[in-house]
Amino acid sequence: MAFKKIINDPVYGFITIHHPLIFELISHPWYQRLRRIKQMALAHLVYPGAVHTRLHHSLGAYHLMCNALHELKEKGAEITENEDLGAKIAILLHDIGHGPFSHALESVISVDVHHEQLSLLLMEELNRQFDGQLTTAIDIFTGRYPKKFLHQLVSGQLDVDRMDYLNRDSFFTGVNEGVIGYDRIIKMLTVHNGELVVEEKAIYSIEKFLIARRLMYWQVYLHKTVLCAEVMLVKILQRARELTLEDPASMPDGIIKDFLSGRYTSVVNNLSEFCALDDTDIAFSIKQWRHHKDRVLALLCEGITDRRLLKLRLQNQPIAEAELEDRLHEIMGRLSLSAPEAAYLVFTGEAVNRTYNPNNEKINILFKDGEVRDISEVDNALIQHNLYGPVKKFYICYYK
Amino acid sequence: MAFKKIINDPVYGFITIHHPLIFELISHPWYQRLRRIKQMALAHLVYPGAVHTRLHHSLGAYHLMCNALHELKEKGAEITENEDLGAKIAILLHDIGHGPFSHALESVISVDVHHEQLSLLLMEELNRQFDGQLTTAIDIFTGRYPKKFLHQLVSGQLDVDRMDYLNRDSFFTGVNEGVIGYDRIIKMLTVHNGELVVEEKAIYSIEKFLIARRLMYWQVYLHKTVLCAEVMLVKILQRARELTLEDPASMPDGIIKDFLSGRYTSVVNNLSEFCALDDTDIAFSIKQWRHHKDRVLALLCEGITDRRLLKLRLQNQPIAEAELEDRLHEIMGRLSLSAPEAAYLVFTGEAVNRTYNPNNEKINILFKDGEVRDISEVDNALIQHNLYGPVKKFYICYYK
Amino acid sequence: MAFKKIINDPVYGFITIHHPLIFELISHPWYQRLRRIKQMALAHLVYPGAVHTRLHHSLGAYHLMCNALHELKEKGAEITENEDLGAKIAILLHDIGHGPFSHALESVISVDVHHEQLSLLLMEELNRQFDGQLTTAIDIFTGRYPKKFLHQLVSGQLDVDRMDYLNRDSFFTGVNEGVIGYDRIIKMLTVHNGELVVEEKAIYSIEKFLIARRLMYWQVYLHKTVLCAEVMLVKILQRARELTLEDPASMPDGIIKDFLSGRYTSVVNNLSEFCALDDTDIAFSIKQWRHHKDRVLALLCEGITDRRLLKLRLQNQPIAEAELEDRLHEIMGRLSLSAPEAAYLVFTGEAVNRTYNPNNEKINILFKDGEVRDISEVDNALIQHNLYGPVKKFYICYYK
Amino acid sequence: MAFKKIINDPVYGFITIHHPLIFELISHPWYQRLRRIKQMALAHLVYPGAVHTRLHHSLGAYHLMCNALHELKEKGAEITENEDLGAKIAILLHDIGHGPFSHALESVISVDVHHEQLSLLLMEELNRQFDGQLTTAIDIFTGRYPKKFLHQLVSGQLDVDRMDYLNRDSFFTGVNEGVIGYDRIIKMLTVHNGELVVEEKAIYSIEKFLIARRLMYWQVYLHKTVLCAEVMLVKILQRARELTLEDPASMPDGIIKDFLSGRYTSVVNNLSEFCALDDTDIAFSIKQWRHHKDRVLALLCEGITDRRLLKLRLQNQPIAEAELEDRLHEIMGRLSLSAPEAAYLVFTGEAVNRTYNPNNEKINILFKDGEVRDISEVDNALIQHNLYGPVKKFYICYYK
Repeated sequence: MAFKKIINDPVYGFITIHHPLIFELISHPWYQRLRRIKQMALAHLVYPGAVHTRLHHSLGAYHLMCNALHELKEKGAEITENEDLGAKIAILLHDIGHGPFSHALESVISVDVHHEQLSLLLMEELNRQFDGQLTTAIDIFTGRYPKKFLHQLVSGQLDVDRMDYLNRDSFFTGVNEGVIGYDRIIKMLTVHNGELVVEEKAIYSIEKFLIARRLMYWQVYLHKTVLCAEVMLVKILQRARELTLEDPASMPDGIIKDFLSGRYTSVVNNLSEFCALDDTDIAFSIKQWRHHKDRVLALLCEGITDRRLLKLRLQNQPIAEAELEDRLHEIMGRLSLSAPEAAYLVFTGEAVNRTYNPNNEKINILFKDGEVRDISEVDNALIQHNLYGPVKKFYICYYK
Repeated sequence: MAFKKIINDPVYGFITIHHPLIFELISHPWYQRLRRIKQMALAHLVYPGAVHTRLHHSLGAYHLMCNALHELKEKGAEITENEDLGAKIAILLHDIGHGPFSHALESVISVDVHHEQLSLLLMEELNRQFDGQLTTAIDIFTGRYPKKFLHQLVSGQLDVDRMDYLNRDSFFTGVNEGVIGYDRIIKMLTVHNGELVVEEKAIYSIEKFLIARRLMYWQVYLHKTVLCAEVMLVKILQRARELTLEDPASMPDGIIKDFLSGRYTSVVNNLSEFCALDDTDIAFSIKQWRHHKDRVLALLCEGITDRRLLKLRLQNQPIAEAELEDRLHEIMGRLSLSAPEAAYLVFTGEAVNRTYNPNNEKINILFKDGEVRDISEVDNALIQHNLYGPVKKFYICYYK
Repeated sequence: MAFKKIINDPVYGFITIHHPLIFELISHPWYQRLRRIKQMALAHLVYPGAVHTRLHHSLGAYHLMCNALHELKEKGAEITENEDLGAKIAILLHDIGHGPFSHALESVISVDVHHEQLSLLLMEELNRQFDGQLTTAIDIFTGRYPKKFLHQLVSGQLDVDRMDYLNRDSFFTGVNEGVIGYDRIIKMLTVHNGELVVEEKAIYSIEKFLIARRLMYWQVYLHKTVLCAEVMLVKILQRARELTLEDPASMPDGIIKDFLSGRYTSVVNNLSEFCALDDTDIAFSIKQWRHHKDRVLALLCEGITDRRLLKLRLQNQPIAEAELEDRLHEIMGRLSLSAPEAAYLVFTGEAVNRTYNPNNEKINILFKDGEVRDISEVDNALIQHNLYGPVKKFYICYYK
Repeated sequence: MAFKKIINDPVYGFITIHHPLIFELISHPWYQRLRRIKQMALAHLVYPGAVHTRLHHSLGAYHLMCNALHELKEKGAEITENEDLGAKIAILLHDIGHGPFSHALESVISVDVHHEQLSLLLMEELNRQFDGQLTTAIDIFTGRYPKKFLHQLVSGQLDVDRMDYLNRDSFFTGVNEGVIGYDRIIKMLTVHNGELVVEEKAIYSIEKFLIARRLMYWQVYLHKTVLCAEVMLVKILQRARELTLEDPASMPDGIIKDFLSGRYTSVVNNLSEFCALDDTDIAFSIKQWRHHKDRVLALLCEGITDRRLLKLRLQNQPIAEAELEDRLHEIMGRLSLSAPEAAYLVFTGEAVNRTYNPNNEKINILFKDGEVRDISEVDNALIQHNLYGPVKKFYICYYK
């Protein structure tokens, strides 16, 4: 009897594990760590259902990869058993190098590599532990593998990573409008000259996919309150690092302090310490720091814990320098803060999103006549020049 | 205890009837007739689930109207009980004048009024039967009622009719991508200077609504096989009328023959005969005409019944005259048909859809600063100039 | 490139056709006829969404068969390509012999065979048309095929027919409580000694399945208004036959009259006439008969058409003879009817359902220790002796 | 313009807050703490989606309360504005006294009150902070309020707490079979002689509700792996307390140590310390204790963190004493443990669930004739004597 494990998933019903190696990788402590990293960081402060984890997301992306490979094989694409397993492992582990609370921590600790490279480093270490069984997966992940379409399924404009997170995030937030026709898009995928393309009749589904993504960005990921919580978290970690360096005795001991103090000079050299980190450590530190003698740190930590957030205003024009100045002075006076202290409670920034960039994220459509064109070149298509440019918004965030 | 009837609806869960007049109108034979008119005519030949009825759709639109009125009242809009009931009746009956199989029949019988006017005529007759209780409903339906927003809920760019049919049609076809965030849009409606407007934060939902509509048009309503079945039905009725006039004895007696023969010179003068018509009559006639001695009629009727349809090709450019000529000659030769006969089996046409027309279907957005602007004038909006123009496609349909 | 057709289904998303023979069978006029037979007959008078067709149901059952065969093969069951195709065809065609409006017609026309046998006859005729390609399907359908589990998937206590109709009917009626965990049950199916069994851990899902079925029976299939409409339809056809035999000239010509008159002495001898029948014919006749001079027939037909139904009362005890007599006399007096005429408008009957009958519909559970026991013998199981017996309810139906 | 806040909820679409007091209570740090307490403790180790929080659940129960009150008022029940608000607050705060990880902690810290009494204590303190505005809510919560049905909506066999958690837990686990027809049940609620009863036609929905609950217990809440993780957590806390008392220096300082050491002699006297606790503290401690010199504690903590759980076997008969002895000796030998140490790694226990207990959790059905009977007395009802008794299962848990 064949190997088979079934996992219940509210999004897809069931996720099936057919191969013992997949199961062993899921059982590895580094993968289990992803249970303790929320997929959407602090978005649950606005969308209370958005507490799903990176483990759940990467299982979901794995499930879509299984479906996509199945479809491509049915359409005659040549995919060996080894390649099939490799592509599944590549997507399963694509986020294994993710730090806690998305990228917040990366902004303050000495991260010498991007999280995708970190995933690669960890995959290479796992490859050693699993006697080279991950070699194909790694080649697919890095794009070195000759069959380009396998890499494109892992990372490209229509990859299963994106399809799962859009779908899963819209499911758990309850923002149904972000739901995409992932099953239809997957059914329309095909391989042409070794590249992943979509059949012509999927054009409207892809337009819908791009619009859903656009909507999720502005309505969820860049929702002003979500954005506010996330920039507050960055400010907390920046302040904590500053205090750790200036007044180490004031900071409670632990792994977070070790990272902030620069004791771990490089993530690359401290992989196992990095893999000990998850949301729990940050969340616990924030709870502790509420009682720190530094008023700025305590105030920001209490704000996050009790959901008493700073105010954030988004607008299409840059924030006037005068407004920033005024607000800074007001807070310095009101709370008797120095200028550097006040800058943690009043600051500006930018949020950027683009719907479609035909330069580096082509979506190739295969027409019935055999021709392949980018979706932005299709007659009557929605995705036209006016959607090319990035949309930038400006914000000011301030203590009230 | 208050009056209350509950109807199960797979789309919204439950539809509640709170007023005895609504219940009596639903019980009227003219309304019950809508049970026998499919909402999507022949689309079920492609989407087998699409067999829902106009009765079901108008109950659904009524349900959304209840929700919308509830929201507006909560936001402080003044709506009297009489207006509340009037708006509900207006939407409940908005399709009561619909003929069988959508508009197919209208193309061949002497319909002297559009189906919306027919709905009005029937509502006026019902108003007599119900002692004037429908007066407000009629005023809202025609737009004569002073509070414009009530009419806009019945008929406008964001009316509950559209919201229900897009939602319901995507539900029953299984084209999930057509699903719209109707509940969110309804929650964002508000009244400003007597007009229906949408709050600023609904912009992305509305973009999604317009895109979903666009997708439903091209993927479902104008799907080439759906379009083909519908133009075949028109050809069948045209041929049947021709035969009725030329050789009346060859046509079986019945109400369809009466209409085709011109015996009922005007729908307005034959309201009760018109209300006796539904899909059953057309479907039964088609089954009968399969055995008609006229080969063209028999062939088309057999095609619809057995789902052996003509071929239809859609393209962006007009069909070349030469192709039409060639195909006509080919069929004339192969089936020994005259030119007029062949024209029922080989013909061309156009399909048109536009995503958004700011000239006659404004969607007014109410900004936080109190300003109202059309969605097409919003910065960064998706709905820009390139979506204004209608999109026209050309088709050729031919017997193979 | 492999053969592949995709059909949108609101219940399962997509139904995929992988084999050209399946596609040709679906395209056959006899199968297309199922488009014009509603799965739930007149239940839409209570549940307006319940207008789905037997074609849609049998496509759905085919889809579940594909899933079930896939699961069983993954678990090591030996299923050849020929058997795989056979089982799929058997379920696809299991309802092909169904008459219009469920079994209503069968009660009055000379149906010499049950609809399952009719399906068999039609499959045998199709086997001739398709040069013997349906032989395995027929052997599986009849239970002659040596691998019993294949037949059990088509017809047994846990067959895919039942799973689809419970699921689909609850979907289209909007009675969500009838939804069953079909996907979980299918994943728990396995083959043991050539028979279909369910793994132990599916016990609760199967309890839920039986309870959902019980609920659907009492809440939907035997809903008093649904029941009423269906017995009215039987009365209409009985009256129509009586009139056809007594006063043939009074009945409009057509296939229904031919069947009622006994001209087609046997369905077996008139297969092609039988296959010309569908809901359209009955529905059209009912619309015509509203104007029949026989008051009983006209009244019943108008009642069905305008949804002005008789009253029906269900109770646990038999209807008192005295009540029936009183109501009969009352109506005879009020409408000046003879006793035989009145018996069409006032009558009694029984509705029966049983939740689980361990004698003829065993659900075999495979325990981890390798033992197989019927679910009713499982410790702590819900399905115990008190659910064995059939539940019978009694009704009286009368004109008000 | 009326007060109105909208929260997205994947289960119900939108949850609406209409009253500023409700909003202020939600904003209170004690309520926000519920964001950091998972509704299903460690069940996510089996069902990865089950990471939803007590905050989300109590918002959901509040939403159902709004619906239920609306229905009852429509049916003529007298509910004043003050009572309406009171019932909503009572359900909103019903879980505010919940400790981290469900009841695990309660088994080891000196909890002198049950969590429902703790909720009451906190509500009383909030009542002081909010100047007596919670008095009606408290009276409803405790059952002192004269209109019994209001309390029954908060706590009873068909309360909105249960409806929400069954529904929400089945939603987030993906165990669709646990979904209940909450909307239908709510529509069938009514008040009779001051008590909450259900209309007769809801009988099948209620049977389904009880069966769904039964299924969720055995398939989810008492799933052997979920049970195992939860008893491991209790063992961890017991061991930690033991070590705290025996060797305080070995335990890291912090609030958990303070509770385990007995420093907070009574929860009642240390409400604010109790309210500082949430899942973060326990989860962080477990991560720390992995490195504790006590092998038993370290091993159990590593097991939970890396999801390397003990083995657990459930059976209908009590575990044989001999098996327990054998396994204890085996582990003592293998890991060189003392008997008391081994008892943390090999132990037995019981899991109990009952489907329906008519003695203390009556479900009263209101029949059409005005009579009220318990569901277990209804003819033909599923819920019969065989479902009365509790079902007990026995388990052994052991380190492998």
